[in-house]
Order: sequence, then structure tokens, then C-alpha cells
Amino acid sequence: VAGVHFRTDDPPETVAARALRVNLSDLAAMGAAPAYYTLALAIPHGCEDKWLDAFAKQLGEDQVTFGIGLIGGDTVSTPGPMTITITAHGSVPSGGAVRRSTASPGDDIYVSGHIGDATLGLAVLNGELKDIAEKDAAYLTDRFWFPSPRTTLGPALRGIATAMVDVSDGLIADLEHICSASGVGAEITIDDVPVSSAARSIITDGLFPASALLSGGDDYELVFSAKPSAGGDIERIARNSKTDISKIGAIVAANKPVVRILDRNGKAVSTDQHGGYQHQW
Amino acid sequence: VAGVHFRTDDPPETVAARALRVNLSDLAAMGAAPAYYTLALAIPHGCEDKWLDAFAKQLGEDQVTFGIGLIGGDTVSTPGPMTITITAHGSVPSGGAVRRSTASPGDDIYVSGHIGDATLGLAVLNGELKDIAEKDAAYLTDRFWFPSPRTTLGPALRGIATAMVDVSDGLIADLEHICSASGVGAEITIDDVPVSSAARSIITDGLFPASALLSGGDDYELVFSAKPSAGGDIERIARNSKTDISKIGAIVAANKPVVRILDRNGKAVSTDQHGGYQHQW
Repeated sequence: VAGVHFRTDDPPETVAARALRVNLSDLAAMGAAPAYYTLALAIPHGCEDKWLDAFAKQLGEDQVTFGIGLIGGDTVSTPGPMTITITAHGSVPSGGAVRRSTASPGDDIYVSGHIGDATLGLAVLNGELKDIAEKDAAYLTDRFWFPSPRTTLGPALRGIATAMVDVSDGLIADLEHICSASGVGAEITIDDVPVSSAARSIITDGLFPASALLSGGDDYELVFSAKPSAGGDIERIARNSKTDISKIGAIVAANKPVVRILDRNGKAVSTDQHGGYQHQW
Repeated sequence: VAGVHFRTDDPPETVAARALRVNLSDLAAMGAAPAYYTLALAIPHGCEDKWLDAFAKQLGEDQVTFGIGLIGGDTVSTPGPMTITITAHGSVPSGGAVRRSTASPGDDIYVSGHIGDATLGLAVLNGELKDIAEKDAAYLTDRFWFPSPRTTLGPALRGIATAMVDVSDGLIADLEHICSASGVGAEITIDDVPVSSAARSIITDGLFPASALLSGGDDYELVFSAKPSAGGDIERIARNSKTDISKIGAIVAANKPVVRILDRNGKAVSTDQHGGYQHQW
């Protein structure tokens, strides 16, 4: 919904890319390969053809990139804001979907790519990070606008990840979803959480609190648990899918689905609601 | 979209029923059996729980009635009007879908149920038919609000209907869709078009032009073509599915996809843009 889920002045190609890719990320998080999608578009009065042209062109390009086709939907007119409904369908072998509810104490916790770039990209768009290098600003904005759904990695982790979600609400919040569904807790070492060099320099310069990256959303990376014995398989999958995968912690037995954040010495970090910790990068 | 596709003061159960059933009708028109559906709901600020409760209750009842399950979707908040996106998926044997493009000259044309009740029901809701019996007003309004998608009849016509559509835009307009896709014309005998007794008495009393029923939409009946040799099969299917099916005309060779309307003597009827003919019921 324009003005709610995207900014009304976001370029149309970014709206298209995010609308489709966040759905592909949901599929990847269950180990599903993209199959097809439907699109229902409620177009406000006065929407210009060139907006729709750019929107459609990006969708067309993404269809090729991610190997998914548009099979149907609807286009209607609305007196309200632009409303885009995409439903993506994917496939897994019968019984092969990766769930949230099947993590066990002792499992390692991994995350793909980098955490926090999207949060910083949004901050750039909101004018909150004016003093950073232009190159970094462009990189971070691009990460927010064009997330990389892990459509190859997700299916490759079937049978290896014991539980998986994608990072849409934020690393901690989404990991808590696994903990809650699996009846476990988690411990992650903050210094092991992978960040980009752009993010690293912003944190180092004290322009943004490191811990805010753990609670920021929109990364669309995969966070998953796996048996320690799967380490070799995961290294091989990372290589084959050309995706960085970082081990960031472990699933632990717990009465509450709490994610504890540890420093490099294994000491619990007080994060002041995940807002106050200064990262040691 | 509230205010565009349904009236903002329509009861929530009628909004739910129409939203799902018009999709089931689309499936039936291709000979598909309902399989599952997705629902994306953009809920305006201030929408009351009891509206949503009634909406959900009706959807739940329709799921049982029509044998279809909700498999996913999304619920979001919008500053605009209530926007409901339902996508229904159905199944046919491979290659078994009934298309619009496969009617041939000489095929008979049939229609299910009654034509025009929904148009009259909408007229009642709009206060345009004040002088009719209360029972008739209630019946017609119900036909508009709770269409009967032909989910049993549609699949039963696979291999028998040579082309099929559902009547959403209006009998003539939708039959023209078959003609256009098949490269043929059609002739229908206006007196053979089936109408309910409520509609018949309104027409007889001169309260509504008969031909307007042919161009009015929202009936969600099936109109289809079939070989003359299929007459016996169609009678059997009508009996088994407990659905009235009426033969109303024939597909003809034509250069333009025109639907000609004939009187009982086979003479072309001048309908003044389908608006002026007085039916002989």
C-alpha cells in the first residue's frame, strides 16, 4: 500500500522489485523453489502510464532473473492509494519444506549475506545519514530497494537447515520466531554478525548504533539453524550458491523464546532494548 | 475495492460471498474444480471487528459449501478504501480446460439458471424498483448478493462444452467474447432466454425493459456452446447437477463476432443498443 509499505515517491522499479522479491524470500525461507506468481494491482486515479511501464519492465526483468512467471491476477482502479498484491507460489518435494518449529538445542545458527544494510539504506533515504560517502549511500540505498532473495540458497538448504526464516522484521525478531515455534532459545555473538564494509565504517564512525542493525528489518537474508555436523555441507552450499554464510551463534534450551546477545567473551550484552550497545568492529 | 466493486454499505457477508464466488465462477467457466484460494485484505482505519467477523464467517461457510480452502495471503492496513484480493485456483485434467476459442458454426448455445436476476437485484438496491412484491425484491437482491457459481456444472461439461464463459459482463457481451475468440457469430432467440418468475412479472408489468436483462451483468451463470449431438448428455448433466440448462441459440459463421437477437419467428430484433425491445414473455 503506497504510503504504508512503500514511499509514494519511491521509483516504480524499486516498488516492483521489492514487491516481488520479498515474496520470493518467503519461499526461499521454506526451501521452496519459485514456481509462479499472481499480481493484483489497484491503480489510483491519475497514475501515469510511464510509472506502470517502469513497474512492469522491472517485474519482467525479475521474472527472468529469478525464474518465475506471472500466471494471472487482476487490474482495477481505486480512489485510494496504489495497492499491490503479489502472491508467489513455490515448490518443494513432498514433506521437504523447511519449518520454523524444528530447531533443537545444540544446533548452530547461521545467517546469509549482510545484516543491517537495508536499515541503513532506509536511513539514507530518510536523510538521517548525510555525512557518509556517496558510494556507500548508493550501495546501501540499493540494498534497501533491491533485496536479493536467496532463491538458490534456500532450496539448497533443504534437509540441512533444521529451521529457517528470512530476515524481514529484523534479525533478532525473526530468530525469536524460530525460538517461539521450536520452544527453544538462542544465543548469538554480536561480533560474528556479518556486516558490509559500508555498514562497518558507519558504525565505526559512530553515525549509527550497531545494535540497531540487529533489530532493523528488510534485509531478506536467511537465518537458519543446523546440526554442527552439517558445517561442511554448509560451506559447500555457500560456495556453490556464491553466497556468504556466517555462523553467528547456537540454539539453546530455554523456557522462554529469548535471543541472548553475547560479546566476544561470551558475556551477555546489555543492549538497552537492542538500541545502546556499541559494536567492537 | 469498496465504493468501486461493491457498495460501502453492503453487508459484510455479501461482500465476502461475492468476492469468493465470482472467482469460483471463473474456474467453473473453464471446467475447473475449486482447489484453494488466497486472500489479501487491505483494511481501512476504523473498520470494526464485527464487520471482519461477519466477513470471515461467510467465507468460512462458503469454503465448506464449495469445497475450497484458504491457503495463505496477507492482511494489511490502508488509509484508502477496503480492498479485497481473492485469487482462486482450480484443477482440470491436463489439456481438459474449456476455452473460449473453440466454438464452431452449427454448435448449439446453452445457458444455465436464469438471466437478469442480478441486474434486477441491483436495481432494487438502487431504489429503482419500488413497486414490486416484497418477496420478489428479497429474491432478486439475494441473487445479486449471493451468486451461485456453477462449480458442479462447469467440470461436468468438460469434453462436452466446445466453448464456455461465465456471465459477468452480461449475456450478450460475454457471448461476444466466445464469438471473438472463436472467429464466429451467434444467434439467440430472446424468448428462449430463461428468466425467473420474479423477473417475468417485472417485465410483464413493464417495470424494466426485457432486453436490458441481456446486457446486464453479475449473473455468474455459464453460457456455453456444444455439438447438437451432445443434447442428451447435457440433459443428463442438468439433471445430475440439479441445474436448469436452456438452449437459447446457435453459433453461426460470421465475419464479425456479432450476437444477433431473434424473435420467436427467427426475425432479427432491433434492440436499440439492447435497450428497447419489449419481450413477449
